[in-house]
Amino acid sequence: MQNFVLQNPTKIIFGTNTLKEIGPETAVFGRKILLVFGRKSIKQNGIYDQVLSSLNQAGVSVVEHGGVVSNPLLSHVRAGIAAAKKNQIEAVVAVGGGSVIDTAKAISAGALVEHDVWQFFKGKKSIRQTLPLTCILTIAAAGSEMNGGMVITNEETRQKFGVGNRILNPRVSILDPSLTFTVPADYTAYGAVDAIAHILEFYFTTQDPATPVQDRFMEGLVINIMESCNRVLQNPADYQGRADLMWSATLALNGWTAAGLGKVGFPMHMIEHSLSALYDIAHGAGLSIIMPAWMGYQAEKRPEKFIQFAQRVFGITGNNQQCALQGIERLKNWFASINSPTTLGQVGINESAIAEIADNALALAALWRLNDYNREIIMDILAACC
Amino acid sequence: MQNFVLQNPTKIIFGTNTLKEIGPETAVFGRKILLVFGRKSIKQNGIYDQVLSSLNQAGVSVVEHGGVVSNPLLSHVRAGIAAAKKNQIEAVVAVGGGSVIDTAKAISAGALVEHDVWQFFKGKKSIRQTLPLTCILTIAAAGSEMNGGMVITNEETRQKFGVGNRILNPRVSILDPSLTFTVPADYTAYGAVDAIAHILEFYFTTQDPATPVQDRFMEGLVINIMESCNRVLQNPADYQGRADLMWSATLALNGWTAAGLGKVGFPMHMIEHSLSALYDIAHGAGLSIIMPAWMGYQAEKRPEKFIQFAQRVFGITGNNQQCALQGIERLKNWFASINSPTTLGQVGINESAIAEIADNALALAALWRLNDYNREIIMDILAACC
Repeated sequence: MQNFVLQNPTKIIFGTNTLKEIGPETAVFGRKILLVFGRKSIKQNGIYDQVLSSLNQAGVSVVEHGGVVSNPLLSHVRAGIAAAKKNQIEAVVAVGGGSVIDTAKAISAGALVEHDVWQFFKGKKSIRQTLPLTCILTIAAAGSEMNGGMVITNEETRQKFGVGNRILNPRVSILDPSLTFTVPADYTAYGAVDAIAHILEFYFTTQDPATPVQDRFMEGLVINIMESCNRVLQNPADYQGRADLMWSATLALNGWTAAGLGKVGFPMHMIEHSLSALYDIAHGAGLSIIMPAWMGYQAEKRPEKFIQFAQRVFGITGNNQQCALQGIERLKNWFASINSPTTLGQVGINESAIAEIADNALALAALWRLNDYNREIIMDILAACC
Repeated sequence: MQNFVLQNPTKIIFGTNTLKEIGPETAVFGRKILLVFGRKSIKQNGIYDQVLSSLNQAGVSVVEHGGVVSNPLLSHVRAGIAAAKKNQIEAVVAVGGGSVIDTAKAISAGALVEHDVWQFFKGKKSIRQTLPLTCILTIAAAGSEMNGGMVITNEETRQKFGVGNRILNPRVSILDPSLTFTVPADYTAYGAVDAIAHILEFYFTTQDPATPVQDRFMEGLVINIMESCNRVLQNPADYQGRADLMWSATLALNGWTAAGLGKVGFPMHMIEHSLSALYDIAHGAGLSIIMPAWMGYQAEKRPEKFIQFAQRVFGITGNNQQCALQGIERLKNWFASINSPTTLGQVGINESAIAEIADNALALAALWRLNDYNREIIMDILAACC
């Protein structure tokens, strides 16, 4: 186990009938808030009305900033920052999934500086303060509700960049599994894939060969994500399944599993970010394509961890390279079983596009210091996705 | 999964060579601190000198309050509170294990009120504020370093009572596994037993039959505690083993595993507290006696959870009551293998003492609202310990 510092101050309010807490929990931080949300869904399913009602009852006045799209856009962040500054906003409330929460985080940081917010993403400026952020989560996937990460797409430069800082952690996140009953099957599946990807980036990229506490924690989460996803695809209103999936997805990326792993990388996300920046496919869909291919590449370099994964997660017996590959195959088959794509062809990208995707990914490899990845390696991994 | 609110603000600094952070981390909270510690060991192994050096370099002045004993005493807490008040102490630094940290917590709460600190333990007063507390952990066991619980023994009334409140959480805890190299074999084993007991109280007393995320987390921790304990008993200076054991013991009782379990009880601790209050045996030693007996009692009421435990933790195949009992037997055998006692006779308590222990435990049963436990049941469990 490696040295680490861990502090996660986010207050989680989890369970049924908790949405109404948003008003009193937010009023502690400010009386004039920017409400960040997506497009139609929260108005259709009634969440929007309940949120406004709770905020109003708590004496909080609201400036709206809706319209966040998946793979959230820098231009929309900038517009939110302008609105926050113009209205002297005191706190930000996010109602949505990772894209909405990430947008809200970027606004909360950008509202307190004079320079352009993209400077944070390019690593040119450090985030020193933020407006307080409270969240209502509406999809189990990104984990943004309990961490200090955010990912935004610059549509001018076609770059999807992320930044992490502990002070971006939401102050409060409300997780009501019943709010995810209406998430459609495809996005439920993509969310599960995203959460598994977060875990496996840590699990397979740690350089430390001895992280048994973290390993068992992560293996348990992967099993739970698959089991609960299967349940809710069968019955979308299975509260218990939605709860297990939601909490597992939060734990996948809240820092608990990674504590003690030392340096880890996000190579699958690196390649996927380029995929979704260039083709605007769903993040989880991109990941289920990239993941098995990358795992195959990585398993040659470090088979022992893949053997452990195959044994403990899929109960595969044996102790060799074959066993490692069987584990990867089982995961890939599971992605297929939940109708998440496993080849580029399935999302309409053909082999001729590989070079452009690889070039885009290389920029991110440099930024994220994934120095092991050159153009050839990335192209090889992408070729295995065809 | 049940509704829950989770917020654990303690900052963990984990790893080798981290002790020196105590000065700067504490200076943030105050310039005059009360240093709470045990008896000889930290002066013998050099930790005391390093702590004073770091505090002095950070400009922090120190009032000493050593002499904490295991099963820490109310009289010593009261003396610490008097010293804190007299010296206008601004923060408390604990250097030790659970007994030391619990004493420091009680002082940190008692120093800010006029009434006697025992009022908190009797449930007559609520804790509303505390002096900031920073800790250096020197034994893997209690989990007090990352939670808001404390247990103190009132030697006048022969009561060992606990209280929990989120504001008792240490602000910062420094966990350096190498500081535990010198923990003797018996206390290393008792610490492992204590951590396992914390997990199994949750695991077996939750009323919720569907807590799969928490279950796998807890099962993984039990496995890791046994494996790492075995390693360090073989080689006390095995850093990796000490690290795994230390972090697992912290996670066992920091609220992460329990989130979503709903109402849980501490029946094993209830009985053990009476044992150690009356006979002053080591807490972990008492628990390894009580645990298998209590598990046998509980397995009749809820065999399915014990079957799952046997299957997942010990790899026992089968799906019946027999399988449940085998799991309990395997755990008991493991306690014996690490030389932790499994019968009352081994610690010099004979059957005639059972009635008195049960009477003492009943007072705690009432306080902790363990309404299922009458005198007869407690005596039956104790009889199974003979």
